[in-house]
Amino acid sequence: MHLKGHRRSPHVLLAQHAHLPEKLEKLPMNVSEAISTRRAIKWYDADHKMPEDTFRELMEHAILSPTAFNIQNWRFLRVRDPEQRKAIRAVAWGQAQVTDASELLVLCFDTKAWSREPESYWRNAPKEVQDFLVPAIAQYYEGKPQVERDEGMRSCGLAGMAIMLMAKELGYDSCPMDGFDYEAVAEIVKLPPDYEIAFMIAIGKGTKAAWPKPGQLPLDDVVVEDRFEV
Amino acid sequence: MHLKGHRRSPHVLLAQHAHLPEKLEKLPMNVSEAISTRRAIKWYDADHKMPEDTFRELMEHAILSPTAFNIQNWRFLRVRDPEQRKAIRAVAWGQAQVTDASELLVLCFDTKAWSREPESYWRNAPKEVQDFLVPAIAQYYEGKPQVERDEGMRSCGLAGMAIMLMAKELGYDSCPMDGFDYEAVAEIVKLPPDYEIAFMIAIGKGTKAAWPKPGQLPLDDVVVEDRFEV
Repeated sequence: MHLKGHRRSPHVLLAQHAHLPEKLEKLPMNVSEAISTRRAIKWYDADHKMPEDTFRELMEHAILSPTAFNIQNWRFLRVRDPEQRKAIRAVAWGQAQVTDASELLVLCFDTKAWSREPESYWRNAPKEVQDFLVPAIAQYYEGKPQVERDEGMRSCGLAGMAIMLMAKELGYDSCPMDGFDYEAVAEIVKLPPDYEIAFMIAIGKGTKAAWPKPGQLPLDDVVVEDRFEV
Repeated sequence: MHLKGHRRSPHVLLAQHAHLPEKLEKLPMNVSEAISTRRAIKWYDADHKMPEDTFRELMEHAILSPTAFNIQNWRFLRVRDPEQRKAIRAVAWGQAQVTDASELLVLCFDTKAWSREPESYWRNAPKEVQDFLVPAIAQYYEGKPQVERDEGMRSCGLAGMAIMLMAKELGYDSCPMDGFDYEAVAEIVKLPPDYEIAFMIAIGKGTKAAWPKPGQLPLDDVVVEDRFEV
C-alpha cells in the first residue's frame, strides 16, 4: 500500500524501533510482529478519535478477506452514536471498551448473501468460470441454514483477524468480543431478518497492557498429524 | 508473487533481520502488503516441501490467535500422508491443491474445549480473575450446542486468517476451502465425536496467479453506520 517499496536505511530503522512499542501511524509492521504483539486490550483512551482516512484504510483491507464463492457475506456495523454505544455496553456486561474505544464494529453477516444476485460476485470472471461457479452457489447453500450460518461465522472470523492485525499496523489495539447479549444487540442495531451477529471488535488506543497470556496450550496439543486416532 | 513489492537492498534486509532475532529465512512483510497480495491460489509446486522449522513457525503464530475465554478450541490436522491427501481430494471436487500444496491443514474444533479443565486456560492469571472468569465459561456454553459451534467457526476463521497472512510473510501462498464433503473428510481423518471441521487451508508455493478479483462489493455496500434501518 502506501508503505510498499520503502527503502529505509538501518539508521532510520533504528530510530523507528526506538519508538516501540508506541507504534505511530504509518509504521510498517511485519505480519509476525503484528500477530505476536496483538492482545485483547480492554482499556482505551476515550478521547482519541480515529482519523476517517485511517478507518477507511482499515476497512478497505478488511474487505480483501476471502469468502466462499466470493459471496462477501459480512456486513460491518460501525457504531459511532454514543447513545448506541451506551445501550450496547449495558447488554455487554458493562465492558468499558464498548464505549471507550475509538471504534466499535459489530461484525454481522447476511445469511442470504449467496442468493442476492450471485452473478454479480463473478461478473468480471471468464464466462466459463461464471457458468461453472454461479450455479454451484445455490447448490451449496439452498435449504441449509446451518451451512449459511457456519459460512457467516467463518467469513467474519477471517475478516476480523485481518481487521485486528491491520489495526496493529495502523497503531491501534483491539478487542474481539462475544461476551454480550446477542438478541439485545440485534434489537439495538435493528438487525435485518436474514442477518446474524458474529462478534464485535473494539478498536482504539489502548491505555493498559493486557495481562500476560493466561494459560496457553503447547503447540503439540493442538496439532495432529494425518488422523485423530492412530 | 511472494516477492512482489520487495525492493529493499540485502544490506537493509540484514539490518532488519538483526532486529528480529526469532525470524528464520522469511522476508519482512507488512500486514497491509500481506492482506493486499494474499489471494486464493489453486495451483502449487507439488515438489516443494515446507521446511519443518517454517511449518513450526507458522503454527506457533497461528496459536496466538484469540479465542473466547481463551478456550483455544481449534485443532489443526496436518495432512502429510499422500494417501490421505488423495482420499480427501476425491471428496473435494478433485481440487488439485489438496494433493499438490506443501501443506494441507484441516481446521477443526473441539466443541467441548470449554469443559476440558477450563481452569487450565487461566492458570497464570491472578486469582480474582480466575474466580470470575472460569465459572463464566460453563455458563456461556453449557447446554448451547449452537453457541459451541459458532465459537468453533469463529475461532478457526480468526486463526485461519493468521495462518494465511503469516504464510505470505514466510513466502507461501494459500487457499482456504470449504468446497468438500464434510462428512466424508470427517470419516477419513477419524474426527472425534465432539469435534467439527471448520474448513481447510492448502499452503504451498503457487505456480499460477489467481484470476483478477471477480466482483468486489464497494466498501459502502458492506459498512453500515449505527443501525441497519434509519
